[in-house]
Amino acid sequence: MPDGLAGELGAPLQEPLFERIAIIGLGLIGSSLAHVCRRKGLARVIVASDLSPEVRARARELKLADIVADSAEAAVAGADLVILCVPVGAMGTVGAAIGPHLRSGAILSDVGSVKSAVIAALAPHVQKGVHLVPAHPVAGTEQSGPDAGFATLFLDRWCILTPPEGSDPDAVAKLTDFWKAAGANVEIMGPAHHDLVLAITSHVPHLIAYNIVGTAADLEAVTQSEVIKFSAGGFRDFTRIAASDPTMWRDVFLNNKEAVLEMLGRFSEDLTALQRMIRNADGQGLFDLFTRTRAIRRSIIAEGQETPAPDFGRPHPDAKT
Amino acid sequence: MPDGLAGELGAPLQEPLFERIAIIGLGLIGSSLAHVCRRKGLARVIVASDLSPEVRARARELKLADIVADSAEAAVAGADLVILCVPVGAMGTVGAAIGPHLRSGAILSDVGSVKSAVIAALAPHVQKGVHLVPAHPVAGTEQSGPDAGFATLFLDRWCILTPPEGSDPDAVAKLTDFWKAAGANVEIMGPAHHDLVLAITSHVPHLIAYNIVGTAADLEAVTQSEVIKFSAGGFRDFTRIAASDPTMWRDVFLNNKEAVLEMLGRFSEDLTALQRMIRNADGQGLFDLFTRTRAIRRSIIAEGQETPAPDFGRPHPDAKT
Repeated sequence: MPDGLAGELGAPLQEPLFERIAIIGLGLIGSSLAHVCRRKGLARVIVASDLSPEVRARARELKLADIVADSAEAAVAGADLVILCVPVGAMGTVGAAIGPHLRSGAILSDVGSVKSAVIAALAPHVQKGVHLVPAHPVAGTEQSGPDAGFATLFLDRWCILTPPEGSDPDAVAKLTDFWKAAGANVEIMGPAHHDLVLAITSHVPHLIAYNIVGTAADLEAVTQSEVIKFSAGGFRDFTRIAASDPTMWRDVFLNNKEAVLEMLGRFSEDLTALQRMIRNADGQGLFDLFTRTRAIRRSIIAEGQETPAPDFGRPHPDAKT
Repeated sequence: MPDGLAGELGAPLQEPLFERIAIIGLGLIGSSLAHVCRRKGLARVIVASDLSPEVRARARELKLADIVADSAEAAVAGADLVILCVPVGAMGTVGAAIGPHLRSGAILSDVGSVKSAVIAALAPHVQKGVHLVPAHPVAGTEQSGPDAGFATLFLDRWCILTPPEGSDPDAVAKLTDFWKAAGANVEIMGPAHHDLVLAITSHVPHLIAYNIVGTAADLEAVTQSEVIKFSAGGFRDFTRIAASDPTMWRDVFLNNKEAVLEMLGRFSEDLTALQRMIRNADGQGLFDLFTRTRAIRRSIIAEGQETPAPDFGRPHPDAKT
């Protein structure tokens, strides 16, 4: 554990926030949650499970949790916090399986990148006395699986909570404390607005990255070998996010269809205008747009969501920062 | 100078390849060239110039060259290698200014991201006995200016030479040696093919990055503050390349119009198909595309054009690689 990062994440809590946390799904987010729960002492007992026997076996080897249960139903029994870290499309199935096993007073949460669809999928399975408080930590890398997780993934990132109307304020406050203790900043918003914000900041960017990588692969005039060789010109950056987990992203697009199609419409409209600027050799129009977009980058760096270090595809101790 | 990188770039040459190199334009590429020429001993004398008096003053402070000349004409006098590192749109003007001052036998080269237009702009000013060998090092960061350069920028990157038909083979060989000594791999191709390859691997990726950053900035339903806060979901990656130098990129699009419009057409066509998959909830189609694009990422890493380390917007010693 690097010293600097331990310091940034802070010392473990004196008293755990939860008696027993159940983490269902041990991909990048689930395994990172397990790490930070352990390191920060967020729960007295960490229980985890995954649909895949291979992932459960690996989780035991990695000692990701105190107990790795063989089923989600077994994992959630007695837990006062349950966090579903499964693809958005699997939420309904998992919700149906665990619903009857959730203890009264428990908080049921998730980490899905889409919120309206997840609420619709889970709500029917939430019995009286269980508090549904959906959440979305806006953090990630392009890697997936139980080996990809690490404790500082959420540090200084935002976690959005989208409690349905009439949610228990104490449950919302407790989940807020949990994510803050995991290093995140917390924002509360409605699920529909969340889905719109994420459509433009995350879903459409992924979609166009997947798209251009696909386009490049299908060209006849340019070989795949040329695309790979000369990827340092900018293409490389797109392949990173186009390497994200296919199941997760399929489910995001299927479950946030309206917001994605709306934002994609705006993107395409703007792209058509830009295309016309090129066709008409409108240098001033191009220059103005390219100058405006620089300012947004500066704000993102100023807000700590990115470092100013230049990136050119390998460690760069020699580069000026 | 970090030890590791000095080793990678190798020891200085026993004998310089050129007596006198003139570097015209001291942005990221020009200043990086100055650094690597110095560190590797590629020329006995390094002369540099820039149109901006501020940049020339800064270049003198940074000791980027042995001589910082006040004009391009003065800089090229007596040089046996001249490399133009100015925006593509400025090549014709600079070419006209320096043409009469180039010594017989000199190699005239450049680093422009577009090749057909640069050849058309420079060729009329190349007198008999001067060898025009255009080049394009496919390397860069999102930073610009004389302070942004560093010696290892070209290390293990590709430099494409596009010698016009009938070029002197000795001049091409000598420029090849130069770029190899600077750490680059060298590929030779025709200018038109270069422009097509770069349109898909660099120009269109930049264009769509600029475009989505612009789209996000113009939304009414999502505030700019929200876009910035939640940029870690993918958007952040696009702002990096949308922070590149506006003048350079305006000129690229104005000077590689046909290839960019052609590749953009392919991109838009594919995006429309993807949009339809989302509208029709074609999960299998989405999954297949998202799986296919992962493989290209792996090839890029295997070819050394990118590291496998996950990127999430800050140094990440804690992350698994």
